[in-house]
Amino acid sequence: MERIMKAAATAVAVLLAVAVLVAEAAHHPRGVTSSYRRKLEASEDMPLDADVFAVPPGRNAPQQVHITLGDQAGTAMTVSWVTVEAEGNSTVLYGRAMGRLDHAAEGTTTRYTFYNYTSGFIHHCTLAGLDHATRYYYAVGFGDTVRTFWFTTPPRPGPDASLRLGLIGDLGQTADSNSTLAHYEQHPGDAVLFVGDLSYADKHPFHDSNRWDTWGRFSERSVAYQPWIWTAGNHEVEYAPELGETTAFKPFTHRYPTPYRASGSSEPYWYSVKLGPAHIIVLSSYSAFGKYTPQFKWLEAELQRVDRAVTPWLFISTHVPWYNSNNFHFMEGEPMRVQFEKMAVDARVDAVFAGHVHAYERSHRYSNIKYNITDGRCTPVADRRAPVYVVIGDGGNIEGLADELTWPQPAYSAFREYSFGHAVLDIKNRTHAYYAWYRNHDGNKVTADATWLTNRYHMPNHDDSSVHSNI
Amino acid sequence: MERIMKAAATAVAVLLAVAVLVAEAAHHPRGVTSSYRRKLEASEDMPLDADVFAVPPGRNAPQQVHITLGDQAGTAMTVSWVTVEAEGNSTVLYGRAMGRLDHAAEGTTTRYTFYNYTSGFIHHCTLAGLDHATRYYYAVGFGDTVRTFWFTTPPRPGPDASLRLGLIGDLGQTADSNSTLAHYEQHPGDAVLFVGDLSYADKHPFHDSNRWDTWGRFSERSVAYQPWIWTAGNHEVEYAPELGETTAFKPFTHRYPTPYRASGSSEPYWYSVKLGPAHIIVLSSYSAFGKYTPQFKWLEAELQRVDRAVTPWLFISTHVPWYNSNNFHFMEGEPMRVQFEKMAVDARVDAVFAGHVHAYERSHRYSNIKYNITDGRCTPVADRRAPVYVVIGDGGNIEGLADELTWPQPAYSAFREYSFGHAVLDIKNRTHAYYAWYRNHDGNKVTADATWLTNRYHMPNHDDSSVHSNI
Ligand SMILES: [Fe+2]
Ligand SMILES: [Fe+2]
Repeated sequence: MERIMKAAATAVAVLLAVAVLVAEAAHHPRGVTSSYRRKLEASEDMPLDADVFAVPPGRNAPQQVHITLGDQAGTAMTVSWVTVEAEGNSTVLYGRAMGRLDHAAEGTTTRYTFYNYTSGFIHHCTLAGLDHATRYYYAVGFGDTVRTFWFTTPPRPGPDASLRLGLIGDLGQTADSNSTLAHYEQHPGDAVLFVGDLSYADKHPFHDSNRWDTWGRFSERSVAYQPWIWTAGNHEVEYAPELGETTAFKPFTHRYPTPYRASGSSEPYWYSVKLGPAHIIVLSSYSAFGKYTPQFKWLEAELQRVDRAVTPWLFISTHVPWYNSNNFHFMEGEPMRVQFEKMAVDARVDAVFAGHVHAYERSHRYSNIKYNITDGRCTPVADRRAPVYVVIGDGGNIEGLADELTWPQPAYSAFREYSFGHAVLDIKNRTHAYYAWYRNHDGNKVTADATWLTNRYHMPNHDDSSVHSNI
Repeated sequence: MERIMKAAATAVAVLLAVAVLVAEAAHHPRGVTSSYRRKLEASEDMPLDADVFAVPPGRNAPQQVHITLGDQAGTAMTVSWVTVEAEGNSTVLYGRAMGRLDHAAEGTTTRYTFYNYTSGFIHHCTLAGLDHATRYYYAVGFGDTVRTFWFTTPPRPGPDASLRLGLIGDLGQTADSNSTLAHYEQHPGDAVLFVGDLSYADKHPFHDSNRWDTWGRFSERSVAYQPWIWTAGNHEVEYAPELGETTAFKPFTHRYPTPYRASGSSEPYWYSVKLGPAHIIVLSSYSAFGKYTPQFKWLEAELQRVDRAVTPWLFISTHVPWYNSNNFHFMEGEPMRVQFEKMAVDARVDAVFAGHVHAYERSHRYSNIKYNITDGRCTPVADRRAPVYVVIGDGGNIEGLADELTWPQPAYSAFREYSFGHAVLDIKNRTHAYYAWYRNHDGNKVTADATWLTNRYHMPNHDDSSVHSNI
């Protein structure tokens, strides 16, 4: 009888929820499923002799040059590159003018093997003590061939700096990948938040790491000039006992450093960085995240350290989305959502960016944190405290698009479309950011979804879901 | 309007669920919350000079002797021990008679530091090529002081062997821990499945590893004579960046080996062993378990390898329970339940054993695997395909009892009580196993919950929930 009473109470709760939804429907626009239909044939990776994979000229020329933030607050940059013919050295010369590289930093060299592949010499060198928002020129490859690049350090952490952040995921190295990168380069940001799945080398026989090399050469044209912030995806795991390779993330960690120690993390896969008004927390879908684990304890402490008066914008990047209404990878993010969603809502995270699903989706501010096993309260509800969830796993890779949506479109889903593309978040000031997603429309860059986000710290009660402007 | 219709549909679904519960109530006995009330004051760890912690006599005598299975199928045993005064050697002599130790095996030695602690010399030696179900005698400590012990190898994997399996968790080293071990020793099994949290050394200042040494000496009286199968608990993690210690599981892995490689695992924290009619899968609550992670991929493959014709009984051991109706650690197991419950139900796992919550609970066969975010189907339902869930984190440790139950008792919960104790699973044959939980009743061993379990492979449709016999 007790259980019957409880179930009846649950039914009443659900009927109340209906009433809430009726009220809700009055001011929430209905979710949009875009009618644009891209041709769906999957693309192959570009051939090894494609121009974008060309080895730079010159004997033992440094290749696959890329940079990422070298500390938490924007005063260091880590430069990485590969030399293939000989080890060379790990020196970086840098300075504020192309003709005056009056500083030097010494890095380290590493290599790895993966099954039948042996990497070139992978160099990492961190330039520290940089000024904020300053253009630096740097050169690598002293010996045979010197190559010179430049970057601008991010603005000093502070509430009123502006910041333009590229959002790219699941990029790969197909012709579509190339379009996505080209579209981003038409109006690039200050940095890219990359939500995981870089090269898809593991889709090639024996996880052919030569495809990590081609990806490094392909992406150099952007990543050598602005920091990309790395999130680990499943194609970075490369756990392959059948090849005798059981060290997870082996090629990725050898090639793509992250500044994890600077934020008190103990593993490269979860960490945080601050760029001007933004505090970005990178989480790992493929590391332990249960209570008491290093990642959990770090996140708990990190959320305490966030100072919204300094960095009003708080974001999370993680590979597997917590909200996704595509049938591909449907509910794969549930374990981490169950673990971390309440913490994110309590912390008033502004947005959570994820990839993995090869499609695009943006949510309203919804949460699903009432469930207690027996109360039946397991349906996402509108919640202004909650982040906006963006799935941006649409860089365009060898696996093709995820083109099977769940129907009806869930109430939490504001806009969804299975096309390739990328997004940009333009933080204007402490209260407003303009967010836009750019579809790759048969090769052209077209703004397909856009909205103003209001800051959850300075405008916590503002319902920005109601003022979004789908194009 | 669409959402209103959906919500109305959800309400109808819940009303249908009420009808199911009414029908259900007809043949499922109501859950029992035991009325026994133990004195609740938490116990301190036994003092360092307690008899049970005594260093064995003799110069540099081997201490903390313990054994665990050395392979997957019961023909190897790994012997471990510590020497403190000098390294000694890692040799084990063994044979079938006390006076005829005619075999020798050579092991390895390791040590570790943890903050201000340096361990003794920790020896591990695997005796391989043993016969099944055979008594062996073994000696360690050649040099100054030799000590001799014995064990019986498990029965050969096969459906008709009987097996008596002790179930102990969250043991610690208080007077209550000592009672639990003494009660188990009154009628010991062939092996112990230990569900995690061994020494609670981390509760002492700087995670004082001397408390790992005392625990090793305390537990030797059982663990030197029969294999304990180890599951990693949160007190094994010992991630302590504040002490400069960021390698998870450091003391545990140095001291307690597991035969993980033998089952194709790549980490010591998840693996499987076969003992007679039982295939036991140990999972790690504190390692990554998301899709594509090593643990996930291993489990997926391992479930394919299980041959119920040979080992009809399939069990999972994991530290954090998937079903627990105590407020302590309530819902901490949700991420792993969400990830693995469907796989366990599909595999017809007979029972899942967990600890962590310092209380006792046994479930009916229930599952909760219908939820798809928007369908509202998130309440556990009776399901004969599902495992029985046992929480046995009641060994009796320094943290005391978890004495706050959720009310009403959930439908899935068959019996719960917050007392210390241990359990034994007596597998009689391929179809029946007798399970009993023994309460520590003011120091006395009392059978407080017992039930017959029927095998999910040979009797998949038998509703053993309806024939359980609480004492
Ligand atoms: Fe992915
Ligand atoms: Fe625990």
